[in-house]
Amino acid sequence: MHKGHIIFKRLLAVLLGAGLFITAEVHAHAEDVRFVNTLMPQPSQLRLSTGPAKISPEMKTTLHGSSNPLLQQATRRALDRLESMTQVLIDKNLQPTDTATLDIAVEDVTATHPVLQMDESYSLDVQSGKVSLHAKTVFGAMHGLETLLQLVQTQGTDFFFPAVHIADTPRFPWRGLMLDPGRRFLSVEEILRTLDGMAAVKLNVLHWHLTEDQGFRIESKRFPKLHELGSEGQYYTQEQVRQIIQYASARGIRIVPEFDMPGHSTSWFVGYPELAAQPGPYHVEHVNHIFNAVMDPTRDSTYKFLDTFFGEMAVLFPDEYMHIGGDESNGKDWSANPAIVRFMQQHNLKDSKALQAYFNLRVQVLLKKHGKQMVGWDEILQPELAQDVVIQNWHGSEFLINGARQGHRGIFSKPYYLDHMYSAAEMYAADPLPEGSPLSAAEAKLVLGGEACMWGEQIATLTADSRIWPRAAAVAERLWSPMTIRDTEDMYRRLEVTSLRLDALGITHLSTPQRGLRQLAGSDAGAAKLAFFTSLLQPVDFHERGKEQHTSPLTPIGRLVDFTTSDPPSRRLLDAQIHAYLQATDPRMREMHREELMDTFFRWLEVSSDLNTLAANHPLIAEVRVRREELPALASLGIQSIGYLESHTMPSAEWTAAQTGLLSRAAEHKELVDYVVLDSLSVLLNATSRP
Amino acid sequence: MHKGHIIFKRLLAVLLGAGLFITAEVHAHAEDVRFVNTLMPQPSQLRLSTGPAKISPEMKTTLHGSSNPLLQQATRRALDRLESMTQVLIDKNLQPTDTATLDIAVEDVTATHPVLQMDESYSLDVQSGKVSLHAKTVFGAMHGLETLLQLVQTQGTDFFFPAVHIADTPRFPWRGLMLDPGRRFLSVEEILRTLDGMAAVKLNVLHWHLTEDQGFRIESKRFPKLHELGSEGQYYTQEQVRQIIQYASARGIRIVPEFDMPGHSTSWFVGYPELAAQPGPYHVEHVNHIFNAVMDPTRDSTYKFLDTFFGEMAVLFPDEYMHIGGDESNGKDWSANPAIVRFMQQHNLKDSKALQAYFNLRVQVLLKKHGKQMVGWDEILQPELAQDVVIQNWHGSEFLINGARQGHRGIFSKPYYLDHMYSAAEMYAADPLPEGSPLSAAEAKLVLGGEACMWGEQIATLTADSRIWPRAAAVAERLWSPMTIRDTEDMYRRLEVTSLRLDALGITHLSTPQRGLRQLAGSDAGAAKLAFFTSLLQPVDFHERGKEQHTSPLTPIGRLVDFTTSDPPSRRLLDAQIHAYLQATDPRMREMHREELMDTFFRWLEVSSDLNTLAANHPLIAEVRVRREELPALASLGIQSIGYLESHTMPSAEWTAAQTGLLSRAAEHKELVDYVVLDSLSVLLNATSRP
Repeated sequence: MHKGHIIFKRLLAVLLGAGLFITAEVHAHAEDVRFVNTLMPQPSQLRLSTGPAKISPEMKTTLHGSSNPLLQQATRRALDRLESMTQVLIDKNLQPTDTATLDIAVEDVTATHPVLQMDESYSLDVQSGKVSLHAKTVFGAMHGLETLLQLVQTQGTDFFFPAVHIADTPRFPWRGLMLDPGRRFLSVEEILRTLDGMAAVKLNVLHWHLTEDQGFRIESKRFPKLHELGSEGQYYTQEQVRQIIQYASARGIRIVPEFDMPGHSTSWFVGYPELAAQPGPYHVEHVNHIFNAVMDPTRDSTYKFLDTFFGEMAVLFPDEYMHIGGDESNGKDWSANPAIVRFMQQHNLKDSKALQAYFNLRVQVLLKKHGKQMVGWDEILQPELAQDVVIQNWHGSEFLINGARQGHRGIFSKPYYLDHMYSAAEMYAADPLPEGSPLSAAEAKLVLGGEACMWGEQIATLTADSRIWPRAAAVAERLWSPMTIRDTEDMYRRLEVTSLRLDALGITHLSTPQRGLRQLAGSDAGAAKLAFFTSLLQPVDFHERGKEQHTSPLTPIGRLVDFTTSDPPSRRLLDAQIHAYLQATDPRMREMHREELMDTFFRWLEVSSDLNTLAANHPLIAEVRVRREELPALASLGIQSIGYLESHTMPSAEWTAAQTGLLSRAAEHKELVDYVVLDSLSVLLNATSRP
Repeated sequence: MHKGHIIFKRLLAVLLGAGLFITAEVHAHAEDVRFVNTLMPQPSQLRLSTGPAKISPEMKTTLHGSSNPLLQQATRRALDRLESMTQVLIDKNLQPTDTATLDIAVEDVTATHPVLQMDESYSLDVQSGKVSLHAKTVFGAMHGLETLLQLVQTQGTDFFFPAVHIADTPRFPWRGLMLDPGRRFLSVEEILRTLDGMAAVKLNVLHWHLTEDQGFRIESKRFPKLHELGSEGQYYTQEQVRQIIQYASARGIRIVPEFDMPGHSTSWFVGYPELAAQPGPYHVEHVNHIFNAVMDPTRDSTYKFLDTFFGEMAVLFPDEYMHIGGDESNGKDWSANPAIVRFMQQHNLKDSKALQAYFNLRVQVLLKKHGKQMVGWDEILQPELAQDVVIQNWHGSEFLINGARQGHRGIFSKPYYLDHMYSAAEMYAADPLPEGSPLSAAEAKLVLGGEACMWGEQIATLTADSRIWPRAAAVAERLWSPMTIRDTEDMYRRLEVTSLRLDALGITHLSTPQRGLRQLAGSDAGAAKLAFFTSLLQPVDFHERGKEQHTSPLTPIGRLVDFTTSDPPSRRLLDAQIHAYLQATDPRMREMHREELMDTFFRWLEVSSDLNTLAANHPLIAEVRVRREELPALASLGIQSIGYLESHTMPSAEWTAAQTGLLSRAAEHKELVDYVVLDSLSVLLNATSRP
């Protein structure tokens, strides 16, 4: 290997003559700045203009509406980020000036927190060296500032805002991300970081799943045993909650808390067993499972408790919406309680569904009393349900459609479950209101938007970012941009840039896997090799991981799988290479593509060898044994396939059968990771059998 | 280039036959675990034992002394880290059990916070599959836990504590790190992170430089205008300070606050100009400079103010020591104030030094009253000073020596200034009490230890970690380990492992430069190329950067220089390669070393070409133009030197002169970065001129 490397080096030396390069500096002029559209989400209208604005220390910003502290902070934050990106010292005096190069005007500056009905539109003009941002509300202006930062381009030795006119408004008003610290606690820093990322891609609802069988994650001053006995010390204080809400509001993000009931509620009962349908005692659950523990919906004391609790939470959370979960309540603890069975008979409640509907009706009355509108998962959709309840869809989209037909507003989630490891393309293709939707125009209006959901069973603070980002940005674009924006290739091109922007914001989706691999490999050089391997893999999906690992809330999170990411670029890259090679008609092009492909497969072989060395030094690399062994075999499949294609020889049936067998074994879930390159390899293999 | 690469790949394929590797799994047995000493700092005594302890879910920990919450938390934290490192689910029940595999016994569990006089010794035994940790105090036990975590080794598919006996105690009791948020604020997270890193290498004092001309960084409830007008909103609340002290105590780290006076005090005067020697008005300084602003030491009201202020701070900070700075007071504002001049005449104070000595005496009385011992920089050392005042050395070590001879305890700092960009080797070699010290045994006892100092002019929260670590670990070892431990090569070997351990702890010295370069390069692949370039560079030192950049507290921190680090491994690597080549006598060895060296130089050429592409896309790479242009020239110097050596030809005088000129131009400070490979290249070049 060393020898080959030297040959290559020598060749290079010959090509270079004396070995001296000449540095060609690019001297650019402002008028040359060509706009490269990397915006995400794409704005609803964009056209080119003339006269880019150079970013320089002379730039002056005027903020009309600086009386609103949220707006003022958002503007300063944007200027700080601009400064950090360009290293140009930016003047942050926002006082009106005649010579403003960045002029921000907001019509209504009265808002103190975002609401569902807010106007989020804005317009942005870069023209004749000046930038104007105009919005109806402070939240529209915040979106405009994010777009402005996404516009920054470099040319030569300078940074510019290219000349464009943008008029932008979202397609859906509810663009959410759900976090689930109920199952595994997520640090305050993680929540704040996530809010930064959300704001960057114009997501505007953090749905906060705060209570679960495994933990009650919020301080209650009225019922302190909820967090004291139900959280094992891992909960958000009310002061932290207020800080998080303030942070979210300052970024135009609503916070909708979820208190899951009547099921998923074991942690409530540790301190207050009297709420439960069975006497207990209860303990915080240390396994992941659907439990029978459930509230007793037949006792008035339950509603009295909830009334007080909702009252406390209604004051803490300013948003008009409150989520009561309502999912996966199996009714077993109800039917095992004679008093509850009697109650059902007395009230003509034929089954547990009917009893849950009864519970929901009473809960909704309480929420109304405290000024809140109710949101719940599919299961709460029952004929008796009041029409203003919002249904969040997590089963098939027929639930969303049925809900709308019954007059309910709905939120689309099922295809956006991040732990199902759908590719960005798959999530991007899933439209809450696809072309040909059976809903009438009036019914369609009830579809409020959607939510990417990050359930907590298999993540921790360490890995949450790398599971959420950048894929959630594809969902954000689906929910913000016009339906007609759906070029997947272009989305992926922009997603790569977006991923780097999130990295700059402090999201750890790139740095944590790198650090993790560095720890396993013991050096950056080793980590680079390991990263090449993991770039061909992705985590198995939620169900498979649960099955293989029996993941519990105590399972350490930090194995190789935790440092792989869903939908890595290698899948698309190999696919493109194989298609380019197979479809090339020009012989020189075909040779070039063949060499590229051979390069790739030889690289796999090289890395396989490196991996063995690394595995000998680290148990957590060693344990991914079968996957490591498959890599050189897959490389060989590729190299040999090319051999057959180049020599116009059909392979033997035995060889083909062996390779097919290899591909199917490699496609089996194992060791918590799946290869993402098998479909492409299969295309290449199939090509060898065509005459 | 591509072609050469392909040749290499083909060659590889030939070597590999069918292209299939065979995975060799290593099956290890517990008794095989060979101890590899990567401990840092090195313990005072270590010997091998028998019977390593395997880390498994069956491991049970017993903590005798669990009544001390600091100790209990420290033990749980250590077990959490062990779990994260090994991904083995660790039982964290600390109740006494007969079958304990990890037995922790502490004699005195009464301590609530660390003090200068604490006993920090511990012993650690891994024998017959069991681990015993014994310490006199909870703080000794904390050190033992850190050592235990550093012992973890992998073998085959398992993790082990290798069998050793360690008895350890520090050489010096004061092992500090100074942080300076006065000049540029550092976030609470940064402080907490730094405490984690300090604990990992057994540093035990955070010297917190809280007030400066550029900012008053701590809330005062007695004098709220101090932080309200003196900090531009960037200060630590008392609640945060308490949190930080608590965090530090839980890691055996004392916090010594510094309130610099009578100079370096502009920020005090913004709110309280009556304290100053001149009427003002004052504003927080936005340049880095030695200012004339100084307290008025002639008015009783000054001491009354300080009395109240010290009283407030004495309660907040539990440590017995308080630092009053005392450095760089130039006396100009004193001599310009007739009332002060008159006072000096009346009191027979012949110059500003004498007036400062007068001030120090009065300040010391106040500190004593509040139960604090005074610490100050060299300048406070005056004959009248009370003997129990501690002198921190930042001029030549003669100040330390003089101080000790006058009976003062001293702290050694000068050679540990991190922003002077000394190599780890240089700092490691600097001993507070070197062999042949002129101090008597009694005087030597007054040397308490030392402090690595991280001044704030040229760093920000973003870059602080990469300036502190891993170099501060070399200082930590100098201060903890026996004087006889001073093998620099071995230190560097262990420093590399330590660096990775700090990375695992969440210190960002590796991840932030990586992220920074990724942002500049626009991709991980580009960042790897850029990192190769920056690995040959280090930041210019403090004085040069100030001169080139006119760095101010407002200067953005995030250029290329900020993502280079001091003393990168490339310096030692190239040095080793060049010496190995020049000294090889066996022809085959010489050829091997020559090829390695050629590899390196050709890699420089390759990267030069990549850099030009990257520079065309990013102004912050483009701006390091001369350094980029020098790289291929330096590579060419190397390649051509080898050519002359191999052909036994003496180069022309013109060529040699040209290369010497190149080296001296490359050695000039410029573009904020210095090459670290020039000394080695010079050795190679000189070799060509020897017959």
